[in-house]
Amino acid sequence: MTVTRSQCANAIRGLAIDAIEKAKSGHPGAPLGMADMAEALWRHCFKHNPANPKWFNRDRFVLSNGHASMLMYSLLYLTGYKLDIEDIKNFRQWNSLTPGHPEYGHTPGVDITTGPLGSGIASAVGMALAERMLAQKYNKPGYDIVDHMTYVFMGDGCLMEGVSHEACSLAGVWKLGKLVALYDSNGISIDGKISGWFTEDVAKRFEAYGWQVVGPIDGHDAAALDRALAEARSDTEHPSLIICHTHIGFGSALADSEKSHGSPLGAENASSAKEALGLPAEPFSVPAEILEAWNATKQGQAWEDEWQTLLEGYKKEYPGLAKEFVRRINGTLPVGVDTVVDNLVRKACEAREKLATRVSSKNVLSELVPAIPELVGGSADLSGSVGTKTASSVIMNPDTYEGNYICYGVREFGMGCIMNGLAAHGGFIPYAGTFMVFSDYAKHAIRLAALMKLRVCWVLTHDSYAVGEDGPTHQPIEQLNMLRSIPGCTVWRPCDAEECAIAWQTALATQGPTCLSLSRQGLPYIDKGRNPAIARGGYIVRDCQGKPDIILLATGSEVSLCVEAAETLTAQNVRVRVVSMPSCEVFDAQDEAYKKAVLPDDVRARLAVEASWTGYWYRYVGLDGDVLGLDHFGASAPGSELARHFGFTADNVVARALALLKKA
Amino acid sequence: MTVTRSQCANAIRGLAIDAIEKAKSGHPGAPLGMADMAEALWRHCFKHNPANPKWFNRDRFVLSNGHASMLMYSLLYLTGYKLDIEDIKNFRQWNSLTPGHPEYGHTPGVDITTGPLGSGIASAVGMALAERMLAQKYNKPGYDIVDHMTYVFMGDGCLMEGVSHEACSLAGVWKLGKLVALYDSNGISIDGKISGWFTEDVAKRFEAYGWQVVGPIDGHDAAALDRALAEARSDTEHPSLIICHTHIGFGSALADSEKSHGSPLGAENASSAKEALGLPAEPFSVPAEILEAWNATKQGQAWEDEWQTLLEGYKKEYPGLAKEFVRRINGTLPVGVDTVVDNLVRKACEAREKLATRVSSKNVLSELVPAIPELVGGSADLSGSVGTKTASSVIMNPDTYEGNYICYGVREFGMGCIMNGLAAHGGFIPYAGTFMVFSDYAKHAIRLAALMKLRVCWVLTHDSYAVGEDGPTHQPIEQLNMLRSIPGCTVWRPCDAEECAIAWQTALATQGPTCLSLSRQGLPYIDKGRNPAIARGGYIVRDCQGKPDIILLATGSEVSLCVEAAETLTAQNVRVRVVSMPSCEVFDAQDEAYKKAVLPDDVRARLAVEASWTGYWYRYVGLDGDVLGLDHFGASAPGSELARHFGFTADNVVARALALLKKA
Repeated sequence: MTVTRSQCANAIRGLAIDAIEKAKSGHPGAPLGMADMAEALWRHCFKHNPANPKWFNRDRFVLSNGHASMLMYSLLYLTGYKLDIEDIKNFRQWNSLTPGHPEYGHTPGVDITTGPLGSGIASAVGMALAERMLAQKYNKPGYDIVDHMTYVFMGDGCLMEGVSHEACSLAGVWKLGKLVALYDSNGISIDGKISGWFTEDVAKRFEAYGWQVVGPIDGHDAAALDRALAEARSDTEHPSLIICHTHIGFGSALADSEKSHGSPLGAENASSAKEALGLPAEPFSVPAEILEAWNATKQGQAWEDEWQTLLEGYKKEYPGLAKEFVRRINGTLPVGVDTVVDNLVRKACEAREKLATRVSSKNVLSELVPAIPELVGGSADLSGSVGTKTASSVIMNPDTYEGNYICYGVREFGMGCIMNGLAAHGGFIPYAGTFMVFSDYAKHAIRLAALMKLRVCWVLTHDSYAVGEDGPTHQPIEQLNMLRSIPGCTVWRPCDAEECAIAWQTALATQGPTCLSLSRQGLPYIDKGRNPAIARGGYIVRDCQGKPDIILLATGSEVSLCVEAAETLTAQNVRVRVVSMPSCEVFDAQDEAYKKAVLPDDVRARLAVEASWTGYWYRYVGLDGDVLGLDHFGASAPGSELARHFGFTADNVVARALALLKKA
Repeated sequence: MTVTRSQCANAIRGLAIDAIEKAKSGHPGAPLGMADMAEALWRHCFKHNPANPKWFNRDRFVLSNGHASMLMYSLLYLTGYKLDIEDIKNFRQWNSLTPGHPEYGHTPGVDITTGPLGSGIASAVGMALAERMLAQKYNKPGYDIVDHMTYVFMGDGCLMEGVSHEACSLAGVWKLGKLVALYDSNGISIDGKISGWFTEDVAKRFEAYGWQVVGPIDGHDAAALDRALAEARSDTEHPSLIICHTHIGFGSALADSEKSHGSPLGAENASSAKEALGLPAEPFSVPAEILEAWNATKQGQAWEDEWQTLLEGYKKEYPGLAKEFVRRINGTLPVGVDTVVDNLVRKACEAREKLATRVSSKNVLSELVPAIPELVGGSADLSGSVGTKTASSVIMNPDTYEGNYICYGVREFGMGCIMNGLAAHGGFIPYAGTFMVFSDYAKHAIRLAALMKLRVCWVLTHDSYAVGEDGPTHQPIEQLNMLRSIPGCTVWRPCDAEECAIAWQTALATQGPTCLSLSRQGLPYIDKGRNPAIARGGYIVRDCQGKPDIILLATGSEVSLCVEAAETLTAQNVRVRVVSMPSCEVFDAQDEAYKKAVLPDDVRARLAVEASWTGYWYRYVGLDGDVLGLDHFGASAPGSELARHFGFTADNVVARALALLKKA
């Protein structure tokens, strides 16, 4: 019996209907609507190896409208990934491989976590860029060892979100010809017919970005899809958007209605839809010949084998490059990074310079960038201010893809998602900078990096009121707290060049995002004698004899205030310990004994000093301690003047410490 | 002596150069580049009354590229606002009226705070919508009491930001013909020539949104600017974009260079620029005839007088409408709102229903929306789920501007900025909803609302892991903490219908944003007998005889767990107090005596329970307390199952309480 393409597409529909019915929750509309698109792409274009979801040269697939997760899981099951029918039956259940939205690192074959709309297409831009940049660096005549497509499915919601604008505009600048986005244009979003809130001419918009626009086509017409995909792939100079007109909830009684979007069809509609689609009534049953028609394991293995052969030849002909390439795609750092950091620490301790930590960070990067080819830097149009561009940084040239530095323009959220895509693709450790206050714009990208455990580094400078004259719009107050509370996000707020070097070293070794909080203003070197405890996140930077009367706890620009205050207090016979806490998350992860040694239970006179929201610090100082911070917005004036007005002086630290001791 | 238009424009340039030199910081490039645009707009189109910056029917001006603040301050000084030359000399100094970026509520004549790029144009869309909606409601034949333009200056950075996409796309949908944006297209952003990161065809993009695009024109050609402004104003069906080609740093040696963007020109360049522009060498000196040519006080007063006369006539002819209109523009609530709330509270206490707080919120809105015509609701495409659309909600129709409900589409950040614009315009109290996790996308809009003390209300539902099957991408963990730490932002997390009504009542009385944290799942009514202390943010919901052994502290969905646990503990002879803390910010603002009465100093066995990041709660429970919360991402499974896995059960509260008591 010949299996038709419709039958193959309908197999997806059947699985989606059944799984969502069984889970009693989910989004049937999108998988039903996009099944034909998926069939055309996954059975006729998509190069992958179900047996090895990590095969590096596979095409990447991004389901930007991640609520269509049952489409993804159906594809993985049907083509032969390690996802069996039991997993499909466990859709949206505890510990299953089939969560509500696709999760990177959780389900084999999921290249990026999606669900938050727009973030998928934006990360796909990063993946497509990664491919081009690696190809530029490693491909040699006869050896296109990096050569794959990045495909995206996205819906109206993705296109409404601003991040799609930011990233797709950049994709145009970067001429990402191997990025193909299929737009599931069904005219419906959750609130109903989109004509009430989304009337823009999407084709024109993408043409304005420099994309090739293909269609609109009938997204249920397999031949039209084939032609469109061929046309998209044939233009290697521009990213392509294929506009596919589809019917949400195709095949069901709820087709073309928002009612099919986010709830199960219901037993009756499910059963009638399956009948209309010619599907077996038995839930989760896919006829053997359809499974056979979908199965991609043989072809997939052949693709990978071919590539492995190519790579073997490459290894022989270009052993140096090959070694570096393999190291990079494995995510291992080059040998010698620790030596670079050690030298930086030694130099910092010798120089004892007063430096803004944003400058210290640039100094660190100046050594790391030439030593680590996978570092790809960038900034949201603040390269000079944030110190991300080093002498070894070469701005990526979209004509050749040479370079290791990306000018993202003023697009923080897009930058974040693109970094996530670069990291998830593999072969890169992205870092990029902006002013800390604008981490707000990118917050959700940082959250997604944390959820995916992606190694990306945010260089967040101008990290307090000390921004000064730019005023409250540019002065972070609550941002450190916001970032520290993202599960799996590590924040470092170094007090000087030494701590800054260690912060970078740790960031490079961390599977998850790191945010560096760096000062605009110069900070004195803190004498602490090459202290290995810095790497423990919190440590005693200045101590007293015996049990302290009081502990001063500080980060970044406030450490020197505390050290200075400690001198004054010591002269008044107060026993003072100063704790520098550059990374609370790293400190929290230390063993209890170490933590109690730094912050002994029986010393409750604790004063935390940080030019940031005070609420954060009570977890360390408790109800008997005090926090010198900022619970109001900043103001426009020179930073040194603000310091006086806001109480960030050694004298005020002394006064607050004495008041605390008096109270105790 | 006839004063030329160039001379008028150059007066702005002179003031900008001098003020920035004196402050030793600032952004000269943009004011120098946009001075001619400002002259054309402010001297030939802009309808305002410098003597009364709050005149309601004034044109609105939004400097979306807020770093050009010296342009704004020059205009205010020159046209005759209460901003004198001493204020200009105090640019960027402590307590001055001329901070680094324009601040709403701080400087007379500043209609919205800008600086964070893109937010200005987005808020302007809200202002222009406000004008149309008020005009629809209140204008009568012969009485166009609401009839003004909204003008925006914006730069390349604004157009790179995603929020400009979200809002401008909506402006097209809404056919905001009285919105005119002048795009300062100078080809330069901070990192240099934008051709490396911003190549999109802006005209085409805006045409795709449904805007009229005028130009490109020479942004230094007064006649061309006049023609363009006339063309823009003549199209009342579409918002207009005027593309103005300009030279950043016009007139200085640093023209066309990013070097003029963000630092003073330096003494030498400043002096040569002033000479080239024919300006007096003496700093801050503007010849009397130029001041005279700029002064708009007479014309401004005449404009307002004319309108006041119109309004007087309107008051006579339409007394009811006039009364409501004046009440609305004064920001006073209608009489009777408290009665509505009292009735809701009474009903809630009688019904004792198990309800999701998102449903309770909808019930409250169902009474408030018909009672308060200035309430304008909306959602980022989740109207059904978040309960923002009531039976009295009418979707705003962009052909007539009738309605009190806005379908924003999937555009959280844009929605936030538009709400800020609606509130800053006056006449509206905007509220809108999305899932709490997506408050991330809008975070900076909420921050700006807080900075501006704007009364906007965010309905953030699905406020914990209990979202369930949608999984970790949709389950907030750190968001409550993020929102609570924004200075001036008030968060309410009600536990039942009664607290929910009080939360709404307080939100309507708060000058600043309120975020309501609401459950997806049903929550039992908590017996507390119409407790007036709810309005104090935190109160004893269940107490014991004598001094408590332990205090259980909870919010929202976790209050009932604690009440249940308290029963069990009481049966074990533990004296338990349960504190419900729906709004930490409101509780914090109570007097010390009240706070200590609720949380006595000498009761240190305190267990906070909230399905959220634990770090927040140590400010209430200290080092001797404990927090039952979530410091990791959620998972995809039914909510009740997650509750067991994550420990949100009364049994676990009991176990943790007993462990804490044992430790003490």
